Amino acid sequence: MPPHLPAQLEFLLMCDRLKAVSRSTFLHDGSRPENSAEHSWHLALMALTLAEYAAPGTNLPRVVELLLTHDLVEIHAGDLHFAASPEAHARQARAETEAAAQLFGLVPEPQRATFHALHAEFEAAQTPEAQFARALDALQPLLLTWAGGGLGCAMREPDLTAARLRALKEPRLRAFPALWTLAQTVLADAVEVGTLPA
Amino acid sequence: MPPHLPAQLEFLLMCDRLKAVSRSTFLHDGSRPENSAEHSWHLALMALTLAEYAAPGTNLPRVVELLLTHDLVEIHAGDLHFAASPEAHARQARAETEAAAQLFGLVPEPQRATFHALHAEFEAAQTPEAQFARALDALQPLLLTWAGGGLGCAMREPDLTAARLRALKEPRLRAFPALWTLAQTVLADAVEVGTLPA
Repeated sequence: MPPHLPAQLEFLLMCDRLKAVSRSTFLHDGSRPENSAEHSWHLALMALTLAEYAAPGTNLPRVVELLLTHDLVEIHAGDLHFAASPEAHARQARAETEAAAQLFGLVPEPQRATFHALHAEFEAAQTPEAQFARALDALQPLLLTWAGGGLGCAMREPDLTAARLRALKEPRLRAFPALWTLAQTVLADAVEVGTLPA
Repeated sequence: MPPHLPAQLEFLLMCDRLKAVSRSTFLHDGSRPENSAEHSWHLALMALTLAEYAAPGTNLPRVVELLLTHDLVEIHAGDLHFAASPEAHARQARAETEAAAQLFGLVPEPQRATFHALHAEFEAAQTPEAQFARALDALQPLLLTWAGGGLGCAMREPDLTAARLRALKEPRLRAFPALWTLAQTVLADAVEVGTLPA
């Protein structure tokens, strides 16, 4: 057996646990909450499908790698609601740094550094690839919730309004006019049909 | 809104249904069956992690694209057990061809042709990329089931033996010595600990 393979196997089996990390978004048929593994798959598929709306010159395979790995730290740190407080976000960032060391420490160098670099690039949001990946990550739950007729989720999310969602989502989406237009259309539609307060 | 975006949105929401397609493999903690969306994510992550065991010159981003899309037809055609009869496999192939036309027909050309080409390449198993993708697809359920201590799944799969699994998996795995060694190690271990008949 090649020398790195047992460590890589242990890492991949640990990653199986991402399928048990539950998100606050429900599937669009409303049947159950989405988990972070299938969410990561959906985002990667969105990157392939919506690639034409990325900035010219964006390295699409890198976007896909960022999306496939961006939530792995949740295996140890859990998922945080996007509308959580700044303090909760700061605590989560520290927990995710520790989680990254624990999880990526399972594989030897240079692979360990490769995974750390992917995580750091996504979090820093400075490259065109990370910015497109984060825009898709911001857009996807809006689409699922809207398609399910439940944007606003009055029972689950009594404090959400279209104005608050617009303010939360705009920083990630405005650089991608097609995606930002789609997000605004969905929010306006939810207000019009009465599933989300203005 | 860009002209193709509403069709792409409809396609991506239809793809959400892959999260409800249940496979015969269980998560490695035995808690529930895996679904085909999170399975596709896990395979893509395996491609990134195990890339060094692909044939030299393999286009890894293409492998990832194949894995992200290879099960989409199951949204309409359902999943088939890998040990099903040749007749069942032939019926499934016809159902998947119809499913591909229905699903990929949601997006306009040239994107429709892109998705059809991915599906056809995976099924034909002629390119190094499709062969590596199919090897990972053959390996992953063995790893999950073995790690869960349940290879053989005596209650769910009373007819499976190590010899039968070896014969079923070898055609996809033997071209990748590291992966085939790993599969054989796992099968031998399951026989040794008594979870799988020889």
